[in-house]
Amino acid sequence: MQMQLLIDRIRKDGIVKDGDVLKVDAFLNHQIDVGLLEEIGKEIRRQFDGKKVTKILTIEASGIAIACIAARYFNCPVLFAKKTKTLNIAGDVYTAEVYSFTHQKMNRIIVSKSFLHADDSVLIIDDFLANGKAIIGLSELVSQAGAELVGAVSVIEKGFQGGGDRIREMGIDLHSLAIVESMDPEKGLIFREEEGIH
Amino acid sequence: MQMQLLIDRIRKDGIVKDGDVLKVDAFLNHQIDVGLLEEIGKEIRRQFDGKKVTKILTIEASGIAIACIAARYFNCPVLFAKKTKTLNIAGDVYTAEVYSFTHQKMNRIIVSKSFLHADDSVLIIDDFLANGKAIIGLSELVSQAGAELVGAVSVIEKGFQGGGDRIREMGIDLHSLAIVESMDPEKGLIFREEEGIH
Repeated sequence: MQMQLLIDRIRKDGIVKDGDVLKVDAFLNHQIDVGLLEEIGKEIRRQFDGKKVTKILTIEASGIAIACIAARYFNCPVLFAKKTKTLNIAGDVYTAEVYSFTHQKMNRIIVSKSFLHADDSVLIIDDFLANGKAIIGLSELVSQAGAELVGAVSVIEKGFQGGGDRIREMGIDLHSLAIVESMDPEKGLIFREEEGIH
Repeated sequence: MQMQLLIDRIRKDGIVKDGDVLKVDAFLNHQIDVGLLEEIGKEIRRQFDGKKVTKILTIEASGIAIACIAARYFNCPVLFAKKTKTLNIAGDVYTAEVYSFTHQKMNRIIVSKSFLHADDSVLIIDDFLANGKAIIGLSELVSQAGAELVGAVSVIEKGFQGGGDRIREMGIDLHSLAIVESMDPEKGLIFREEEGIH
């Protein structure tokens, strides 16, 4: 379910650029409004009310902020996947390949096997969802560990890029707190309407 | 001033490796114990009691976690410097060069001029201090903006590498929450004693 406070903030401080780029540098992924993240963290807890979560999994760098603040409401640790270019990865990590829309390149992501186990119940949290490859890659790490995937959260989903819908079709319980349906430097932002807004 | 809770945790879960490497992946920079970060955040606020801080400045990736949790106790935003390899940086950023001990390479760090101003009072927070180049680079960004540097915090300082003492000699009010004076895979960790431990 989308979050009105967040949508209002994106309308106020988000900047639409050519090439389907939405800059939210003012409050989410360069300068960080920690008060806003606390409201987002509470909303994530509300949306996964009653669900057991033993670990929040995210990806460096900007996912770390929201994951850490949200983790306060779940009383669980955060684990962040690291990006690496190294092809020869030692056997003590889980690994997946992720294509970055922002940086237009392939990254290998890794987490240490020491910190993700078959008895973990994992919630994936990331700041942006475009082509969905980050969340899919993170879900592969959860599978490799034999852990339970409780669901996934993206703070901002670019709905028109289709990644979110692909993830939903895979059966992952994806919650996006703001879904941008279209954006245009002239016309501005239009958010998805069929989902409720809290 | 050092922090006993943190020192105890480093002794318990830190792993000393050859080449002066101290791995704290279990609670600080891969898996993150958010409860511990909250205690660290409170301690940072206590050590800078009464000081006006309008912005916490850190560097991606693992500095983001501690900066965001600490920012809750300062009621201010976080700004994280980004690492980039791009040499041609547009004129709307402050930039400095930082040599990474961990990755043995030179990084250029940048922050947008939009988020760092002459009227800001900045506290720098980073997770690790080895050669001190990250904090020095971040302090250069603060200078370029004409902002006030309130001080700097490193969660773990490797005292034997001298970076922290160089920063203190520069007149920066550096607070390290744990200062490792020597480490050895056989003998283990020895922390600096001349400073008080809280």
